Amino acid sequence: MSKAIQDLYPENLAHCYGCGRNNPNGLHLKTYLEGDETVAHFTPEEQYTALPGSVYGGLIASLLDCHGTGSAAAFACKADNISLEEAPIPVRCVTGSLKVDFKAPTPMGVELELKGKLRSIEGRKIWVDMTLSAEGKVCATGEILAIRLKEE
Amino acid sequence: MSKAIQDLYPENLAHCYGCGRNNPNGLHLKTYLEGDETVAHFTPEEQYTALPGSVYGGLIASLLDCHGTGSAAAFACKADNISLEEAPIPVRCVTGSLKVDFKAPTPMGVELELKGKLRSIEGRKIWVDMTLSAEGKVCATGEILAIRLKEE
Repeated sequence: MSKAIQDLYPENLAHCYGCGRNNPNGLHLKTYLEGDETVAHFTPEEQYTALPGSVYGGLIASLLDCHGTGSAAAFACKADNISLEEAPIPVRCVTGSLKVDFKAPTPMGVELELKGKLRSIEGRKIWVDMTLSAEGKVCATGEILAIRLKEE
Repeated sequence: MSKAIQDLYPENLAHCYGCGRNNPNGLHLKTYLEGDETVAHFTPEEQYTALPGSVYGGLIASLLDCHGTGSAAAFACKADNISLEEAPIPVRCVTGSLKVDFKAPTPMGVELELKGKLRSIEGRKIWVDMTLSAEGKVCATGEILAIRLKEE
């Protein structure tokens, strides 16, 4: 397995609350490229509740946001034959738009699995389709348009 | 001005991380109905960063999620002539889908303003259009489909 995409981001672009290794208070989501898809796992703390027993929709959107930009970076590296073994990678994406569809309540107290699949790449625009599952059931789907930052 | 919608939610449905008064660790967003629109204000703490200097997209989605469900509840109450002066209100909405378009980086260190406008109500489905602004500039827009819970 390759390293987590977020551990390959350039040092000065790794402070994101959701996934930055340099944010001491953050969620530290880690996205891995596995073949043609990306995967991440996360177990929410009790405080991230919505209605009692369910995970907060804002946290779900946050996880999909970071898994989406991470997946976009991974797919861009793959398309450009950039190694995911060595940090830093010269690719970092930000969110242009994010849509989340909540299919079923997401249960608290279990590990969530996020998956991502590349829809398309057009220049600096990268579209990724995602699912968020709990115990094998898809609880939410996400679509992200990620924008690849210009290299400085 | 009426009370905040989130302070009118039934006691057992007020634990949301983003806006529940009964969540001690949460963000405590407060949405107010003002005439035909809703408004909320929030100043993110430093930890909620994305790229340095900008507010984390997941937090922006979280604020739009809670302002969206709160706005939907407010508009439903208005449509049904339910007073917003007395708690609890018999209306609580959850998110069916949420779309966020990021128009410009949202600056850290300033108060953000969220606004909501009713698009339509069809039975238990309520659509709300939102903006999130900083210093008078729209940084993100949001569209929510909120679902009104059945009364128990």
